[in-house]
Amino acid sequence: MNYSTATQTGTLLSRYYRRLLPLYRRSNTATDGGHSEEHKRTTAASASPYLEMSSPLDLYECVTAQGETVRSIKAKKGSKEEVDAAVQVLLQMKLDYKRVTGQDYKAGCPPQDGVTPQDGAAPQDGEDQVDPWSVSSSSAKGVDYEKLIVRFGSSKVDQELVDRISRLTGKTPHRFLRRGIFFSHRDMHQILDAFEQQKPFYLYTGRGPSSQAIHVGHLIPFIFTKWLQDVFDVPLVIQLTDDEKYLWKDLTLEECRRFTVENARDIIACGFDVNKTFIFSDLEYMGASPAFYRNVVKVQKHVTFNQVKGIFGFTDSDCIGKISFPAIQAAPSFSNSFPQIFGDRKDVQCLIPCAIDQDPYFRMTRDVAPRIGYLKPALLHSTFFPALQGAQTKMSASDANSTIFLTDTPKQIKNKVNKHAFSGGKDTIEEHRKLGGDPDVDVSFMYLTFFLEDDELLEKIRQDYSSGAMLTGELKKSLIDTLQPIIAEHQEKRKHVTDDIVQQFMTPRKLHFSC
Amino acid sequence: MNYSTATQTGTLLSRYYRRLLPLYRRSNTATDGGHSEEHKRTTAASASPYLEMSSPLDLYECVTAQGETVRSIKAKKGSKEEVDAAVQVLLQMKLDYKRVTGQDYKAGCPPQDGVTPQDGAAPQDGEDQVDPWSVSSSSAKGVDYEKLIVRFGSSKVDQELVDRISRLTGKTPHRFLRRGIFFSHRDMHQILDAFEQQKPFYLYTGRGPSSQAIHVGHLIPFIFTKWLQDVFDVPLVIQLTDDEKYLWKDLTLEECRRFTVENARDIIACGFDVNKTFIFSDLEYMGASPAFYRNVVKVQKHVTFNQVKGIFGFTDSDCIGKISFPAIQAAPSFSNSFPQIFGDRKDVQCLIPCAIDQDPYFRMTRDVAPRIGYLKPALLHSTFFPALQGAQTKMSASDANSTIFLTDTPKQIKNKVNKHAFSGGKDTIEEHRKLGGDPDVDVSFMYLTFFLEDDELLEKIRQDYSSGAMLTGELKKSLIDTLQPIIAEHQEKRKHVTDDIVQQFMTPRKLHFSC
Repeated sequence: MNYSTATQTGTLLSRYYRRLLPLYRRSNTATDGGHSEEHKRTTAASASPYLEMSSPLDLYECVTAQGETVRSIKAKKGSKEEVDAAVQVLLQMKLDYKRVTGQDYKAGCPPQDGVTPQDGAAPQDGEDQVDPWSVSSSSAKGVDYEKLIVRFGSSKVDQELVDRISRLTGKTPHRFLRRGIFFSHRDMHQILDAFEQQKPFYLYTGRGPSSQAIHVGHLIPFIFTKWLQDVFDVPLVIQLTDDEKYLWKDLTLEECRRFTVENARDIIACGFDVNKTFIFSDLEYMGASPAFYRNVVKVQKHVTFNQVKGIFGFTDSDCIGKISFPAIQAAPSFSNSFPQIFGDRKDVQCLIPCAIDQDPYFRMTRDVAPRIGYLKPALLHSTFFPALQGAQTKMSASDANSTIFLTDTPKQIKNKVNKHAFSGGKDTIEEHRKLGGDPDVDVSFMYLTFFLEDDELLEKIRQDYSSGAMLTGELKKSLIDTLQPIIAEHQEKRKHVTDDIVQQFMTPRKLHFSC
Repeated sequence: MNYSTATQTGTLLSRYYRRLLPLYRRSNTATDGGHSEEHKRTTAASASPYLEMSSPLDLYECVTAQGETVRSIKAKKGSKEEVDAAVQVLLQMKLDYKRVTGQDYKAGCPPQDGVTPQDGAAPQDGEDQVDPWSVSSSSAKGVDYEKLIVRFGSSKVDQELVDRISRLTGKTPHRFLRRGIFFSHRDMHQILDAFEQQKPFYLYTGRGPSSQAIHVGHLIPFIFTKWLQDVFDVPLVIQLTDDEKYLWKDLTLEECRRFTVENARDIIACGFDVNKTFIFSDLEYMGASPAFYRNVVKVQKHVTFNQVKGIFGFTDSDCIGKISFPAIQAAPSFSNSFPQIFGDRKDVQCLIPCAIDQDPYFRMTRDVAPRIGYLKPALLHSTFFPALQGAQTKMSASDANSTIFLTDTPKQIKNKVNKHAFSGGKDTIEEHRKLGGDPDVDVSFMYLTFFLEDDELLEKIRQDYSSGAMLTGELKKSLIDTLQPIIAEHQEKRKHVTDDIVQQFMTPRKLHFSC
């Protein structure tokens, strides 16, 4: 790639840019198979003290000048390579601007002090909003996950990766892998390399217990994690962030504690192996493990307020608990946070299956890890489980009409699907028969992709619905017939999760695993 | 008090001010005996959302306008009441300005973004600097403690209080009380009321173990706390903030842990009763007590970054560990942080003997306490132990020449005092005999006030030194003769503090005390 283009045509070559150009060059020459985007950012971040010393206005002017450069190359009908190179530099500059100022670059709007900074990979105008506290899209098809991979700098779960997992485990890939529901990853090949070399790794996932009401969407990471535990035969830690919920919500510590236990029951009902699974509440485990707190403090020492402001959009009015909380979600990524499981080993790699909205926590964790002598955790990201009313938002326990709870009766499930599930069908039967429905925006069909195991049947439904051979009512019936037994079975299993069993899962103890 | 003065003569009555005036009225009518300053601040802070919404520049203009109002009243020779009323409003506005912007109001200097905010009770030009990280004064007599009482809004330890302590305990007041070394307090009468009614209270003090080298100045709070424990017969918790030192200093967790144990040895050598004393390291106890962590999170939920910015001067570049740390120093002020001692009782009041530079932590704690349903801790503040070179700064372990360590030999003590202790004597013996020395700036004399028990002898030394009858060399010899046996005795006692004894003190357990 030729970076000279930008300098040849640039109108403004500021001090900042002259100092920075070698860094951009250096960072862009590195390629490490799929992680180059992240690598670039890390390298620039750690290697450019100039950036930190430049004023926001300097940086703003540089980005503006580079924007003009790009436009002028395009106007002169420069080669695709020239344009690409200049755009590449522009994108990096925008990232840097964002990192230093905590604000998105907007043409015509010089940086303002005191403006609330947003997430490090914050949406531009018209882009989907995806962060730990809100998910929304303007499209009925839901979030554009291909774009999200680019924005977050993660890698796509492609057929090659799915095939490799299948080959190494000797198992059919889970339907969530076959259907792109776990669609993005970081360093998954590294985990598989380790597995191939019979080096150990462990799984870490979690949940914020903000209410007793768990819905079907909440099950997605747990269903998949249970499958990973089974096929890889590895230990698993599950963090219940009751402290987070206490800090963010209008809840007492006692309420958070109660939700934790009730949520743990639902998680256990997913079928985890008690010999390989440790479930913990932050409010309990923090006070039961000096090793865990030591890692929390280590992370807290290496992350500044500026950084969490950029990543999570915290402001000066946020409580100090929120500001330091990300370190608590980071700590379970390091194996020596669990001495009862791993002894003092800090080199057991961690794989985190989670919804993509949790990625900001782990971008931060991956940034800190090497600086405190630890391995970066690997990740597998899932899409969101859409609300009944449509894929513009994810299912939320706080809106009962948009949600199928794990406590719903067969009748409630039937009524909710029939009444609320957004349909991709046409207005009249005649029209539907003639033009067919749109499975890409139909929530019932989306739910079937999550829960119907039979690939052929799912494909047949897709075709029949698209052609108009299948009506919306029939599609909904398929979903109802699929969901009712799954939820009934969950309820049955949950009944058998006694207080004693919860206690067993939540007791810090040795786990059984090879390596 | 008549607040209309300000409005009648004011030239600029901004939106902000119109909204704010009723709040100023309300908050100033409350008086609660000695704590009105603190009360005012709290009331205004909690009752004025307008403040938060006003821009720093708005506020700046209001303060400036009110300053002009005051000058104009004075120019017109207004009554004392008129002037007082306008000044009162001005002072409150300056406090508000400070709280919102994190900066001191300076005439002619509009608020700047990005400037490092200072302590909530930050020094004005020429005032002494006193915060948890630095203490300095331009005067050889050291910090002006009378002014500090006014600035911090605490109360003076007056003769009446000293007499009451003596009457209630039946003991001669400790020399630190007799000589104004513990010179300031908050709510000490409340503690004595409780004691009179045979209600329990407990003591809490602490230390940041930043090195192995403890000096004589470090002993002051512990010597006094030991006396309080003896005369009141109450339980005591001692916090060693090894996490704080890890966050602030270039130290590893292992080094912090080692310093903690070594410092605990020196503390135990002060003679604390193992049956009534629990010493804990944050890095250990946080991971051993869910109750402690619950209180940390409670405090963290109720303090914003804006607040710690104002109180401690934190900036956006500080790590998130520093930002949330004040909650960890606050938590031991609440009795249910120690269930092994107090069960689930949250109503056992806490008395904190500490040097005045720690007050910012406890101003914050006292502000939070009622909002989370807890009692405010009471405080007894000591002056600083001056450096050998003079009272402009306090003794610091990082400057060996300014410091007498507890590990120093009799010879080292003698040499350091003779060589470095700042003298209030005259340049020549003749002059000294004629004019006398100045004990108020003489460091050897100051140290004698800390360590020489005999009041009459101390007074005789003061008189003889002031008159010129006693020479600097003789004064220094008195100090050397006083210090050498004290330090030798400490070293002897420390030798007997085995690992087992440290372990006993640091094990969470029941303590023995009445009530």
